[in-house]
Amino acid sequence: MSIDLEILKALHGASGRSVSGADLSQTLGVTRAAIWARVQELRSLGYDIDASPHQGYKIISCPDLLHADDLLARLGPVSVIGRDIRVFKETTSTNDVVEKLARDGVKEGVVVFAESQTRGRGRLGRKWVSPSGKGLWFSILLRPALIPGEATRLTILAAVALRRAISGYTGIEPEIKWPNDILIKGRKTAGILTEMHAEPDRIKHLVLGIGVDVNVEPEQLPPELGPIATSLRAETGRMINRAELACRILRELDADYEHLNSGQFARMVDEWEEHCSTIGNNVSIRIGNRTLRGRAEALSEDGALLVRSEHGRLEAVIGGDVSLDKPT
Amino acid sequence: MSIDLEILKALHGASGRSVSGADLSQTLGVTRAAIWARVQELRSLGYDIDASPHQGYKIISCPDLLHADDLLARLGPVSVIGRDIRVFKETTSTNDVVEKLARDGVKEGVVVFAESQTRGRGRLGRKWVSPSGKGLWFSILLRPALIPGEATRLTILAAVALRRAISGYTGIEPEIKWPNDILIKGRKTAGILTEMHAEPDRIKHLVLGIGVDVNVEPEQLPPELGPIATSLRAETGRMINRAELACRILRELDADYEHLNSGQFARMVDEWEEHCSTIGNNVSIRIGNRTLRGRAEALSEDGALLVRSEHGRLEAVIGGDVSLDKPT
Repeated sequence: MSIDLEILKALHGASGRSVSGADLSQTLGVTRAAIWARVQELRSLGYDIDASPHQGYKIISCPDLLHADDLLARLGPVSVIGRDIRVFKETTSTNDVVEKLARDGVKEGVVVFAESQTRGRGRLGRKWVSPSGKGLWFSILLRPALIPGEATRLTILAAVALRRAISGYTGIEPEIKWPNDILIKGRKTAGILTEMHAEPDRIKHLVLGIGVDVNVEPEQLPPELGPIATSLRAETGRMINRAELACRILRELDADYEHLNSGQFARMVDEWEEHCSTIGNNVSIRIGNRTLRGRAEALSEDGALLVRSEHGRLEAVIGGDVSLDKPT
Repeated sequence: MSIDLEILKALHGASGRSVSGADLSQTLGVTRAAIWARVQELRSLGYDIDASPHQGYKIISCPDLLHADDLLARLGPVSVIGRDIRVFKETTSTNDVVEKLARDGVKEGVVVFAESQTRGRGRLGRKWVSPSGKGLWFSILLRPALIPGEATRLTILAAVALRRAISGYTGIEPEIKWPNDILIKGRKTAGILTEMHAEPDRIKHLVLGIGVDVNVEPEQLPPELGPIATSLRAETGRMINRAELACRILRELDADYEHLNSGQFARMVDEWEEHCSTIGNNVSIRIGNRTLRGRAEALSEDGALLVRSEHGRLEAVIGGDVSLDKPT
């Protein structure tokens, strides 16, 4: 048991009311002095906690940092995703950290956040810019009972859950660009990188990497990303509480992972199609050396994009670089 | 340049004739004394090298050990598989070593042998017994331009190449048991473990692990494997030169990997079907919790086993545990 976690749970759970030190001391089985010492420690991290001799402790405000105990305290009960949370100040890539945990046999559901990544990456080996303290850069370890050809389902799951969480928290309605981007008014705000370790007939583990440009300022991005990227802050005009948004995302992911495991992937396909900016449009998809042109018609039950080519043939596309064409 | 490699190349290449120290010295650009010192070192490893003042060096016999330079010298030119060979005295699992090399960015084609493995493994997380110096336990790093759903092709490729090499070297005709075992008279002699790191739409790297029970004695295997396992030594009644067999296997694998990359996978499917003990038989396949019973009819173009179920439906099976049923 982490005392910090229990104190933060009690303070967050009190919804603005005070929690008596005596009660905390009794519930946690530690002295009131020990509680006081931990509160002082939390204050030194930037937590504004009011302490009154008669009423007890009350949380006034939280700093804009990611703190494992605080995230666990806010998150509440989950089935799998988020039952173990670890926060790093800096990593190469959170996917790499989770990959190591996976090989050490850690249970699925662990989430690793980093305040910054020195070698964050996106799909197709692309660099992912991750300025310190400005976004949510995290990865989740999963061990789904799927075959490798079904891994796209996790990208689809992550896209709908992430979109729903952002929409619910900010009121903005982002779109999904197949297969793994979340856009606001056509500009990228979040991305998903799914990686797996597998035998041909079973996934041994899968790492779901998610990056969300939360409070990133336009000038923190390389100039070439200016026209194609944005952040929640830029779109809403206000600072976003990263810890609250993170918990909202994890709850949505956890719920959808349960749905996936109980055979309800179809509902994610429906939700995906509803919010996808790719479906119904003419697209060009670069697949290796060739370019497929056609109309994106739907998502297959495995997460492939079904494209009606110029020659009338329906192709199921599982990878490639998509761009929207002007209607002809 | 490794001097040992060049000396061994010259000695193996002389096919029983002597190679003059003066010629070696000139070709390699080192002193005759340096050549002599390396020959002494090879002798200390067990190489029987005859040295005559007038005629030079001649290889009489080689010890039964795996030596990277010796394997490279015997192997001769290859396209990809075997252009880099590393030998370990002991590893946990050669697949793990190659996995690390892959993450360090090593080029495809590197082959890692171990004289023994402390945690050798087979499919479905099973233990693979690897007694020291008695078998060929090795793994190959590949970076094929395939999607995860096509990874079974590498298992098929490895099975036909391995079967062909064993048949060519020993005169025995092994069978293939779907998906990854090489049997002699129904008993397992070699196995293949294919593992990959992938995004949903591309394999980033693939590790082909191969274990061959070459000179393993029946008493070196756990008693429960007695009735189901055998070795090349037990079947041929003679000791097999592991280095020669290893090179033969690597050449066959290298040739077939070129075929795969030039769009000729179909020829491997044909060869596979010709030597497969599974095809044409009634089988029971345990897939997770259910058992599929039917007749194994063919291999699909992706390496799946096509099984006509009792109800007449044709199922493509990509994983599971197969056992042959008695004909009904």
